[in-house]
Amino acid sequence: MIPTLESYVQDRWVTPAHGLAEIPSAVDGRPVARASSDGVDFADAVRHARTVGGPALRASTFHDRADRLKALAAFLSERKDRLYALAADTGATKRDNLIDVDGGIGTLFAYASRGRRELPAERFVIEGDTEALSRGGSFVGLHVLTPLAGVAVHINAFNFPCWGLLEKLAPTILAGVPVITKPATATAYVAEALVRLIVEADVLPKGALQFICGSAGDLLDHLGGQDVVSFTGSADTSERLRNHPTIGRNAVRFIAERDSLNAAVLGPDATEGTPELDLFVKEVVREMTVKAGQKCTAIRRVVVPRAIEPAVTQAIARKLAETTVGDPRRDDVRMGPLASLAQRAAVRDAVAALAAEAEIVAGDPAHATPLGGDPETGAFMAPVLLRCADPLTATRVHAVEPFGPVATVMPYDTLDDAVEIVAKGEGSLVASVFTHDDRVADALVHGIAPWHGRVLIVDRDCAKESTGHGSPLPGLVHGGPGRAGGGEEMGGLRGVFHYMQRTALQGSPARLAALTRRWTKGAPAPGATVHPFRRDYDALAVGDTVETPSRTVTLADIEHFADFTGDAFYAHMDEAAAKANPFFPGRVAHGYLILSFAAGLFVDPAPGPLLANYGLDNLRFLKPVSPGDAIRVRLTVKEKRPARKAEYGEVRWDVEVFNQDGETVARYDLLTMSARRTANGDAAAA
Amino acid sequence: MIPTLESYVQDRWVTPAHGLAEIPSAVDGRPVARASSDGVDFADAVRHARTVGGPALRASTFHDRADRLKALAAFLSERKDRLYALAADTGATKRDNLIDVDGGIGTLFAYASRGRRELPAERFVIEGDTEALSRGGSFVGLHVLTPLAGVAVHINAFNFPCWGLLEKLAPTILAGVPVITKPATATAYVAEALVRLIVEADVLPKGALQFICGSAGDLLDHLGGQDVVSFTGSADTSERLRNHPTIGRNAVRFIAERDSLNAAVLGPDATEGTPELDLFVKEVVREMTVKAGQKCTAIRRVVVPRAIEPAVTQAIARKLAETTVGDPRRDDVRMGPLASLAQRAAVRDAVAALAAEAEIVAGDPAHATPLGGDPETGAFMAPVLLRCADPLTATRVHAVEPFGPVATVMPYDTLDDAVEIVAKGEGSLVASVFTHDDRVADALVHGIAPWHGRVLIVDRDCAKESTGHGSPLPGLVHGGPGRAGGGEEMGGLRGVFHYMQRTALQGSPARLAALTRRWTKGAPAPGATVHPFRRDYDALAVGDTVETPSRTVTLADIEHFADFTGDAFYAHMDEAAAKANPFFPGRVAHGYLILSFAAGLFVDPAPGPLLANYGLDNLRFLKPVSPGDAIRVRLTVKEKRPARKAEYGEVRWDVEVFNQDGETVARYDLLTMSARRTANGDAAAA
Repeated sequence: MIPTLESYVQDRWVTPAHGLAEIPSAVDGRPVARASSDGVDFADAVRHARTVGGPALRASTFHDRADRLKALAAFLSERKDRLYALAADTGATKRDNLIDVDGGIGTLFAYASRGRRELPAERFVIEGDTEALSRGGSFVGLHVLTPLAGVAVHINAFNFPCWGLLEKLAPTILAGVPVITKPATATAYVAEALVRLIVEADVLPKGALQFICGSAGDLLDHLGGQDVVSFTGSADTSERLRNHPTIGRNAVRFIAERDSLNAAVLGPDATEGTPELDLFVKEVVREMTVKAGQKCTAIRRVVVPRAIEPAVTQAIARKLAETTVGDPRRDDVRMGPLASLAQRAAVRDAVAALAAEAEIVAGDPAHATPLGGDPETGAFMAPVLLRCADPLTATRVHAVEPFGPVATVMPYDTLDDAVEIVAKGEGSLVASVFTHDDRVADALVHGIAPWHGRVLIVDRDCAKESTGHGSPLPGLVHGGPGRAGGGEEMGGLRGVFHYMQRTALQGSPARLAALTRRWTKGAPAPGATVHPFRRDYDALAVGDTVETPSRTVTLADIEHFADFTGDAFYAHMDEAAAKANPFFPGRVAHGYLILSFAAGLFVDPAPGPLLANYGLDNLRFLKPVSPGDAIRVRLTVKEKRPARKAEYGEVRWDVEVFNQDGETVARYDLLTMSARRTANGDAAAA
Repeated sequence: MIPTLESYVQDRWVTPAHGLAEIPSAVDGRPVARASSDGVDFADAVRHARTVGGPALRASTFHDRADRLKALAAFLSERKDRLYALAADTGATKRDNLIDVDGGIGTLFAYASRGRRELPAERFVIEGDTEALSRGGSFVGLHVLTPLAGVAVHINAFNFPCWGLLEKLAPTILAGVPVITKPATATAYVAEALVRLIVEADVLPKGALQFICGSAGDLLDHLGGQDVVSFTGSADTSERLRNHPTIGRNAVRFIAERDSLNAAVLGPDATEGTPELDLFVKEVVREMTVKAGQKCTAIRRVVVPRAIEPAVTQAIARKLAETTVGDPRRDDVRMGPLASLAQRAAVRDAVAALAAEAEIVAGDPAHATPLGGDPETGAFMAPVLLRCADPLTATRVHAVEPFGPVATVMPYDTLDDAVEIVAKGEGSLVASVFTHDDRVADALVHGIAPWHGRVLIVDRDCAKESTGHGSPLPGLVHGGPGRAGGGEEMGGLRGVFHYMQRTALQGSPARLAALTRRWTKGAPAPGATVHPFRRDYDALAVGDTVETPSRTVTLADIEHFADFTGDAFYAHMDEAAAKANPFFPGRVAHGYLILSFAAGLFVDPAPGPLLANYGLDNLRFLKPVSPGDAIRVRLTVKEKRPARKAEYGEVRWDVEVFNQDGETVARYDLLTMSARRTANGDAAAA
């Protein structure tokens, strides 16, 4: 019996009764599953996300959500074989599964770790520094990011049923926004199995994830200005969705990743015998054949110096001829079928369109001889290489994307021409440049950058560790301008912030410090009755302050410090030379002497909750300290954040060092670890 | 004779022959000017921007462009009276001109200064830190921002002919992108005069600014994926533009700032007699009457605790009654006319729509008795205050924006209700919260943040210096989600980056360091034959490195340092207590001792091009240094940037301190000033 796929809405599985469409296997055409979103009430789904999932997620902190993502990733990691097994019918080889399944789980892990490391244990993020908005300092501003109060609708392409779902899910959940995700129907059985695992894992709160198997119905009708649509797929579908009246009227955020004719450029320095030439040929072949070329990041345009072009074309053609096509379950098969016969027909049409401007130099688009699978009903296709002799005047080779194992070689004469050829793609997700010459890299990379979301430079130095042309990474942005849709995903926290609202806050330092839990100059700084270093992490309040007595810095101190440390820089030692320096009035104290004396003034020596000074940020020496000046320090708790271990937390202190005239001579953030209170009320490590 | 306004296209003024529309004075209906974009070839304008203006701007650095903006601001500042004089016919009082004319010039100055201070003397920006992409460190990534290769089309609203043009122009020019700007025709004679001044100033390169007076014709047909449209105006027009087929197909960036029903919320703590209550009443009246309420940021919804609502409504009504309406040139006039009779008719229609859900409690929308001007042909209107008793069930009061001197009072019972009422606006540019209570601020501000681009908290502490509810500031984002259009402008550099493409670069440290002019670990670090502190700024190359000999840190050193500085923290002085600390193996050296000895190792004492160490960034102590450990330092030029003075430049050094086992014990960025070479080849201050 053919399994019927279900949707997961309002925390339960919905079985469709009507409108079931059969999904054929890419390998042999046999029906693998049936799908329909019949029975799903899309208005209810949106309401459920907004009223149940959103509030539950927003009640937790970034750290809580990161922990959930990590638990989910670990859970999936142990069960990924189930997904591998299903994915074979989509045409995926083991190599393809590493990208889709393992890549997706890896992205979850990456966001979990980033959330813990780079986001606070809070429900909002402070972005950037406090802005002074007034002379007197009583009116200041800063930016915060808050989770949107709506729902994220993720609409994915057929090629990556796992990675596509997870790379969008991870940053969205981390942001605190619930998700309704819809896979492409052609490979929905893999996505459905993934969602079953996620539900089984039971680590996301109720309402945080819903899943639509089949058509999206009237889902978009229910969206508003707090919602986000993130789409991956063709430009045509993207335009249809973007032009939906609700999207524009309500200014629904719309992130699109669509067609892209990615280029790989061989530098003129990469002549025969260079490692870069070999790397180039290998990468082009890999990008053409992984996922049978059904990757939005795959290389479509192979841009090569004219002189070496015949040799490069031959080398690529030779390697392509060695690529075994067939049933992806077989060990001797390198490349599986396309996702469906319809997909193959579309690729053949695209090749026919390209053939008006380019000649086919390798592969027959009409015939393949698969190893296993069914040659009639399986969607097999041999890799096809074309060559366009005049890419500067051609248009289709830069505009028609054959979403399969197809690429076009394009010769160029000058670096300027190469840039122009690449730019004719009118916006791509990624380009790669193969060169070991800094001048070539400079001209090509800066030249093509405005048209790309990512540019990879491959050379002998990075080849071993390079993740390759086609791999989006969680820490780098994925997306491109123009034809590629103008969207951006991932890029570390940038991808999280797409699901949050940036808000400028303005007010008095007191109000903003209380609102953001970050002390800022001008906010109340209550003098402590106890030295704050004697307060444990939990007892410390943002704003707690200590003011030290002062200490005079003598010429003897300076000379002694120079002698002791070996830092005998003339500005400290030679009155005449120091005076000639544009910054100093004469001999001055070492900056490090000021820091050291400051520590001497504020340190509390006995064991206590303060465990260690682990760093210092944004230190600026603002005014020279001359012999005879007396310095004193004000130390204020600026921010607190829990550390990875439960025993202590990180405290950031605002430190200001003044001279006897009340002028600031140095300012910095001091970073300490402070013990947390134990169950019996004592500081853990005191 | 009525002047005919001209467009400025391809660096020359274009006089229209046909289709001229008369623009009437808001004060007396007399025709002030005639406008038409007849004669403008929009395809040529776009081509000119792309082929002349863009390349010219991109050939310069951010600093060059910042300097041009500053020169332009200074030029305009001396000639602003010309604009004041013309603006009276738009209805602008002196107070209104301060916002429009002075505010616009102030934004130019602000971006000039930010460009100098926060952007490099380069053609691209590095965003964020280097990302490690591999275990071995041979493959790394980072993000750069590059100016788009297209044109920015700015479409402005009638209310701020100067500020609207300049606040969009400044960040765009700073980004390196040419501008085609189109004012609303109703006040285009002020914008045209401004552009004449800009042309007269002659500080922008050819093709950097073009100006369309009249209709935008087929301008949008010519845009592509490297272009940006930034629109301010009504939601209807915004939707019409956004749905233009070229915009979607080519993924033209589209920034919209449109309808917004901004709220001001009075906190329950702001009872009678509190400064916050008085400030609230004053601000509501100011926002209703400045620019005759024709401000996208004006307060439209006045959200007040139910108990105090009658008193607040009365107080506002009283002050409104004192507002003198009339010819803006008169000193006794507080509020001018609306921009046009059509505008007034639209406001009256909006008031009629609101009156279905709210009663008019002050002002007669149908009558005004102006001081001066023509009561028949001038677009005068009295301020109108409405009151909606049940704002939680009402809909129009949250959706219909009367773009004039109109606001609606809305009582609330609980803070949750207040948040819900504000959120019913479905996205606004700004809200203000009047409270002196941190808990009230916390509930309201975090509650409404997702619906706003800016939230102002007003209290007695900031009132004197607060710039007020209605003032967007260059350093803070301006824009809002949902109904407000979902766009963002300004916000410091964020507004510059809207006109740039973010690109992730990946490759070997060597390639990326050369490409970005920022040294990163793993990139070549040629050992210098000369100590790099003896090289002047211009001779220093990114990557220049010095490795120091090592120095053993003895227990005596530690004890002496403790004694000398007064820092006798137990981790340095008490073996048993130090061992009990979770971070230390026993007694360890002071962090400041390590820094000081490191300086002693790398400092070159004699006068030379190195002038001063002015700070330190991102210091982390990574491993404790125990007595007997020997430390050594590697110092590498990481980045160079010119300072404000020509005599020296800022050099950022990567400093890594190692122990005898080659482990990193501390790492930081050291910041120095180094002298530049003088004309005779010597370092300036050596």
